[in-house]
Amino acid sequence: MAEHIRIAIAGHGNLGRGVEAAIGKNPDMRLVGIYTRRAPDQLTPLEAGTPVFGMDALPTHTDRIDVLILCGGSKEDLPRQGPELAALFNTVDSFDTHARIPEYFAAVDAPARANRKTALVSTGWDPGVFSINRVISEALLPDGVTYTFWGDGLSQGHSDALRRVPGVAGAVQYTRPIQEAMDRVRSASRPTLSTREKHRRECFVVLQEGADAEQVRNAIVSMPHYFDEYDTEVNFISADELARDHQAMTHGGFVIRSGNTSPTNAQVIEYSLKLGSNPEFTASVLVTYARAVHRMHMAEQYGAKTVFDVPPAMLSPKTAEELRAEYL
Amino acid sequence: MAEHIRIAIAGHGNLGRGVEAAIGKNPDMRLVGIYTRRAPDQLTPLEAGTPVFGMDALPTHTDRIDVLILCGGSKEDLPRQGPELAALFNTVDSFDTHARIPEYFAAVDAPARANRKTALVSTGWDPGVFSINRVISEALLPDGVTYTFWGDGLSQGHSDALRRVPGVAGAVQYTRPIQEAMDRVRSASRPTLSTREKHRRECFVVLQEGADAEQVRNAIVSMPHYFDEYDTEVNFISADELARDHQAMTHGGFVIRSGNTSPTNAQVIEYSLKLGSNPEFTASVLVTYARAVHRMHMAEQYGAKTVFDVPPAMLSPKTAEELRAEYL
Repeated sequence: MAEHIRIAIAGHGNLGRGVEAAIGKNPDMRLVGIYTRRAPDQLTPLEAGTPVFGMDALPTHTDRIDVLILCGGSKEDLPRQGPELAALFNTVDSFDTHARIPEYFAAVDAPARANRKTALVSTGWDPGVFSINRVISEALLPDGVTYTFWGDGLSQGHSDALRRVPGVAGAVQYTRPIQEAMDRVRSASRPTLSTREKHRRECFVVLQEGADAEQVRNAIVSMPHYFDEYDTEVNFISADELARDHQAMTHGGFVIRSGNTSPTNAQVIEYSLKLGSNPEFTASVLVTYARAVHRMHMAEQYGAKTVFDVPPAMLSPKTAEELRAEYL
Repeated sequence: MAEHIRIAIAGHGNLGRGVEAAIGKNPDMRLVGIYTRRAPDQLTPLEAGTPVFGMDALPTHTDRIDVLILCGGSKEDLPRQGPELAALFNTVDSFDTHARIPEYFAAVDAPARANRKTALVSTGWDPGVFSINRVISEALLPDGVTYTFWGDGLSQGHSDALRRVPGVAGAVQYTRPIQEAMDRVRSASRPTLSTREKHRRECFVVLQEGADAEQVRNAIVSMPHYFDEYDTEVNFISADELARDHQAMTHGGFVIRSGNTSPTNAQVIEYSLKLGSNPEFTASVLVTYARAVHRMHMAEQYGAKTVFDVPPAMLSPKTAEELRAEYL
């Protein structure tokens, strides 16, 4: 086997821990360091031997790392870290604030190009493998419509919104796709679906001492953008129930395109994920794209990249000959 | 809009007609000619103005065509045409004899390279988009198992096998995936499935005058490789019923990978196609890849290529900026 790809992790929350686990599943990679903003000795790596450093050690470690996987959040961490670290390292990240991706891409592209680095931004599952499927299925069936459904799964953004409602002590929110809408989409009838017809929202809420349940419910179901356009179910539970029954980080979704290749013939392409752990799957995608980033860098393809720039062969540890013989 | 990509079609069976229809759905392309082995004036193109030529005109038309789509069969036509025409044109084909793909790739690669042409071989849905999904999902979930199910759909190879049985006047065969097996795969239990457990085969047979039904049935269900390892149902019908009820060219299938990202967390990736017309969908894939071949050729990426070499962005008519803004 060729030399290992030396991977490092910047940030050690759920996503960083998922990346640690994923590297262990890829024998062509080696985890050479975890970089954290906490005190390094407070962090317990999955494998006892993995070196842990403070984030400030990164600029002195540029020759030890082939690809740095950025595991910070899209709100606070990545807008600053992404451009900074792309000047020093080849990077991969999961920046997922959809509306700001073009701006973020540009901010990462300039330092990466200037320093002959390769930086793949906004991968994971959505944005990420769902995005690939939207692009490819639309290219295959130009006369058609694409639908994305999310869930069943816990939405972090909507759970956060619940927790900001006065009177709420704790909460989670599940996004559920509506079966009838999916069936209509799969029938290739190209339905026009309202927001309410595609997903419903199910909330499990722990009230603060003395809070009024009806008042909290009304505040939730009428919350603009987050809940008002959906059928939202609010269930009140105890703190113990929240801790016991609502810790799983399952998620998933569906990208479905239907289109016609002739007036009489409809075609349906469907891609779906059923994820036992949202952060661990996202982490696996980041690690797979780290392999591609390393190869693109070796091929002198510098600057910011997205999943749209990566040929499938670059994601696989197998050779082109193996892929042609075994997977076509 | 930039200049059109000038596409031509070599061979005008079901697949060639599907390519004609698909080009009409892609405004960045123009169909500049259909090349046939029949008398050109015997062929009626979909659009009245499309020029039709004999196959022997091709060598004199090299400067008129950006990409030639080869619509011949894998058994007789492509093994000869693929290498010959890749010396003269950028080409795309659907060569699908899985076991011979490495050999075919090599036979096309040499003339394409020598003449600075780009030749994408073996695209369609399987080999093709199914192959991409096998490679990507295995890369994302290295600790897992991939399953492919085909159907419901009419299998040309198995229908041909039926027609070779003595006493058979006409026949079609449908491949049906077995629901229980798919459910087990989707549960992420990684079952070991025998050939018989994954698919069943349903035959509709017209007997020749005086043929013995039981003898024909036995010859079918015991036919090595094609039927003996499956539960095969044989239905005898009239020639009229065959003509009336069994002309649709529907097909489809499923690529499902389940894997673990940690001992407790399983993940399932599923890609499926439900095709109203198998040849029209295959044709749409060929046309989409013709766009990529044109771009790879412009970028001086010569030689034989496969779907594994093509980044998603190359398949889409949209710009990189549009894709980042609208699809991530």
